[in-house]
Amino acid sequence: MSGGAPRESKGLTTMPQGRPASVPEDGLTTRQRRNRPLLIVHTGPGKGKSTAAFGLAMRAWNQGWPIGVFQFVKSAKWRVGEERALRVLGDSGEGGTVSWHKMGEGWSWIQRPGREEDHAADAREGWEQIKRDLAAETFQLYVLDEFTYPMKWGWVDVEDVVETLRARPGTQHVVVTGRDADPRLLDAADLVTEMGKVKHPMDTGQKGQKGIEW
Amino acid sequence: MSGGAPRESKGLTTMPQGRPASVPEDGLTTRQRRNRPLLIVHTGPGKGKSTAAFGLAMRAWNQGWPIGVFQFVKSAKWRVGEERALRVLGDSGEGGTVSWHKMGEGWSWIQRPGREEDHAADAREGWEQIKRDLAAETFQLYVLDEFTYPMKWGWVDVEDVVETLRARPGTQHVVVTGRDADPRLLDAADLVTEMGKVKHPMDTGQKGQKGIEW
Repeated sequence: MSGGAPRESKGLTTMPQGRPASVPEDGLTTRQRRNRPLLIVHTGPGKGKSTAAFGLAMRAWNQGWPIGVFQFVKSAKWRVGEERALRVLGDSGEGGTVSWHKMGEGWSWIQRPGREEDHAADAREGWEQIKRDLAAETFQLYVLDEFTYPMKWGWVDVEDVVETLRARPGTQHVVVTGRDADPRLLDAADLVTEMGKVKHPMDTGQKGQKGIEW
Repeated sequence: MSGGAPRESKGLTTMPQGRPASVPEDGLTTRQRRNRPLLIVHTGPGKGKSTAAFGLAMRAWNQGWPIGVFQFVKSAKWRVGEERALRVLGDSGEGGTVSWHKMGEGWSWIQRPGREEDHAADAREGWEQIKRDLAAETFQLYVLDEFTYPMKWGWVDVEDVVETLRARPGTQHVVVTGRDADPRLLDAADLVTEMGKVKHPMDTGQKGQKGIEW
C-alpha cells in the first residue's frame, strides 16, 4: 500500500457509471477487466433488441472498429434504415468499416412449409462463416441479429455456439439479438438485457410504419 | 363488399408484423392509423434505452426526416459515438438532417449540491425550446434523451409535457428515454418498452469501456 504503484482512485471517481458493486478475485487488473471482450444478449418480447444492437454499432464505428453484421431475418424491408446508415458510416472513412451479411431469402424466422431444410442449411452455413471470422479476428464487433431463432429451432447447436464464443481469441465483442435466448447462452453472456413489452401500437390496430419499424 | 374499392388483403399479408390483433373503431382508415405520430418511451433499469432510441434515429435518417436530439445528460463522453455517427449521417446529404442539442454542463441527472437551481432552470429552458420546435413542426423525430429525470425531479411539469405532446401538430414522432417514467407519460405513450437488467458486467467488477458504453 505504500509502494509507488499508481492509484486507481482517479479512474474510479471519474467513471460515469461509478464504482462497481463488487470486485471479483479473478486475478485481472482493472484495465484487463475493462477491456474484456463482451458477449451481449438482447432478448425478451419487447421492441428495441436489434435497434439497440445497431445503436451499439454506432459507438463501435466511432471507435474505428471493424463491424460485422450477420442478419438472420428474411424481409428486405427490415433493418433497411440501419443497414443504409451503417453502410454510409462505414464508407465515410471517418470511423470503422461495416460488413453487412444477409443470410439470403432462405433465412427467416418465419417458417414456411417445405423450406425448413434450406433454412437450416443456410443457418448452419452462416454460423460456420461467423466461426471462421471469429478465428481470423475479422471484426471487433459482431451483430448476430435474430440469431436466437436458429438456436431455438435446433438448426445451430447451442453448445457449439457457447463453446466457440467462450474460446474466441482477442478482443471481439459479440451482440446476439432475438427472443427466447437459450439459458446456456444467457449463462455465457456478460451483459443481458430483457426488452419487455409494456405497450405496443399493434395492440390498438396500429400497423408498422416507415421510419419507425424499418 | 361488391364495390370497386381496393382490397387491403395484399397489404395485410405482406406486412412483416402480420395482422393486428384487433382493429379499433376509431373511424380512422388504415393509412391514417399507420401514419399516426407516435410517442415512444424507453424506460426501465436495463441497458439499451438510449441506444435503441438512437438506432431508431438511423431509420428516421434513412427516411429523410429532420431529427432533433435533446440530450439531458452531463458527461461529454456519453453518447459521443452516437452523436458523431448521427452528425456524419446528417451531414452526408443522403438522408435526413440531425440537430443535436446538449443542455450544457449544468444539465445532469447527477445532482450536485448547490447546483440544483441551475439544473432546474436549464431543464425548463430545454423543454420550452422543445415546445417551440413542436409548435413549429421543426423535426419529424425528437429524441428526448434522459428526459424522464427532469420530470421525476419536478423540474419540468409532467402535465404540461403530456398535454403538449398529446396536442402536438402534424406527424412528429417523439422518443423519451430514462428510468422511472411517470405513469401519466406512459399512459399517453403509444409504445412503451421496459428495458430490464438481467445481467450486467458491473456486477462482476467490469467497468465501462469505449465502444460499448460510449
